[in-house]
Amino acid sequence: MGRGRFITLEGGEGAGKSTQARTLAGALADAGLPVLLTREPGGAPGAEAVRDLLLGRGWDGIAECLLHFAARREHAARMIEPALAAGIWVVCDRFADSTLAYQVHGQGVPRAAFDAIAGAALQGLRPDLTLVLDVPPGLGMARVQARGEVNRYDRLDAGFHERVRDGFAAVLAAEPGRCLRIDASATAPEVAAAILGAVTARLLPA
Amino acid sequence: MGRGRFITLEGGEGAGKSTQARTLAGALADAGLPVLLTREPGGAPGAEAVRDLLLGRGWDGIAECLLHFAARREHAARMIEPALAAGIWVVCDRFADSTLAYQVHGQGVPRAAFDAIAGAALQGLRPDLTLVLDVPPGLGMARVQARGEVNRYDRLDAGFHERVRDGFAAVLAAEPGRCLRIDASATAPEVAAAILGAVTARLLPA
Ligand SMILES: Nc1ncnc2c1ncn2[C@@H]1O[C@H](COP(=O)(O)OP(=O)(O)OP(=O)(O)O)[C@@H](O)[C@H]1O
Ligand SMILES: Nc1ncnc2c1ncn2[C@@H]1O[C@H](COP(=O)(O)OP(=O)(O)OP(=O)(O)O)[C@@H](O)[C@H]1O
Ligand SMILES: [Mg+2]
Ligand SMILES: [Mg+2]
Repeated sequence: MGRGRFITLEGGEGAGKSTQARTLAGALADAGLPVLLTREPGGAPGAEAVRDLLLGRGWDGIAECLLHFAARREHAARMIEPALAAGIWVVCDRFADSTLAYQVHGQGVPRAAFDAIAGAALQGLRPDLTLVLDVPPGLGMARVQARGEVNRYDRLDAGFHERVRDGFAAVLAAEPGRCLRIDASATAPEVAAAILGAVTARLLPA
Repeated sequence: MGRGRFITLEGGEGAGKSTQARTLAGALADAGLPVLLTREPGGAPGAEAVRDLLLGRGWDGIAECLLHFAARREHAARMIEPALAAGIWVVCDRFADSTLAYQVHGQGVPRAAFDAIAGAALQGLRPDLTLVLDVPPGLGMARVQARGEVNRYDRLDAGFHERVRDGFAAVLAAEPGRCLRIDASATAPEVAAAILGAVTARLLPA
């Protein structure tokens, strides 16, 4: 069996990443592919412990970036890489682009610090396809409020969420071969169809 | 008041770092200097929380390096930098050289990953003086066993502790302007006198 494919879902609060990650994993499983559905920060025991630390208190921006990549490294080394090597497809709800968007564009961590940390932590691991779920921040926040749970980021100001969206737009512009914008303001079934179409076109042999 | 001076104590298990850090801080205070005595991993609330994570379970080597520098960044940004800016001298029991010795030399993390992470985390912060307390690992381990508490590193094999010692020797060779080897196999008062002599010669105006 060949190496699995690594698909990440990215986007701001309430864009529909978790909803679409579940739907995509189900569709791949229905197509007979072995699938690992996972999320960040977290996805491995040590990484989940770091997630609790991240959500539990405020951090210096660079420290927060280091903690995200510590969790990501643990997740990558213990779960993602072994799964891919075993031929399992990996669908991951948030990955490194979220740290770029939130910590660099949103919080002002220097881009050079991000690049140095990301390079050291990832050691060449790179998604085969990144779906950037794009919604106007107001719509995403309205969905999150309707869902009823809020987290630390959800409480940040509108300017922050606009900068995060600009961060994802910068990733899309810089890496069109890896990343694809998905209009996530459509209904959930419409978004799922767009995602499945993109995955089929880019990753499944005809 | 001018900027404070930043002094780190480094070395393997049981070299006498904690003992000598306390003695040095006391001597500086006796000389009328304001002193912050602190230790790593830890030294700030978030950093202490990361310390608990580090000691509580095993980690991928690069993840461990990222966690150490996340704690260090939090410590540096919230405690060390503000203290130095306020004219306070900082005496720190372990700092970045310990991560180089333990994770790179001891555990095999790539040096390039360490350099990238350290550069991003420290943003130019560098000790004014680093005292490397050197003892044969067997003597240090005998002291630790006599003290009666052991930690995760204390249980590693002799080869590991030899590699850590080699790591500190490499730092001494590479940065003689910052680092000084102290023979720590002498008695505690003899080691304290050597340290105070070095601090006086290098950092206190005649
Ligand atoms: N296309 C959609 N249209 C309307 N509501 C949606 C759509 N997709 C998801 N939702 C709902 O919006 C809320 C947020 O969706 P979801 O949790 O999937 O977003 P998310 O991007 O994972 O959010 P977070 O950033 O908070 O993790 C949920 O209640 C979900 O049921
Ligand atoms: N020069 C010395 N001679 C003999 N014993 C010493 C000397 N210095 C310290 N000790 C004793 O050795 C033990 C270890 O010393 P200490 O805790 O200061 O070392 P350390 O380098 O901080 O160790 P660790 O790496 O475990 O933090 C303690 O019980 C201490 O009292
Ligand atoms: Mg979600
Ligand atoms: Mg000690």
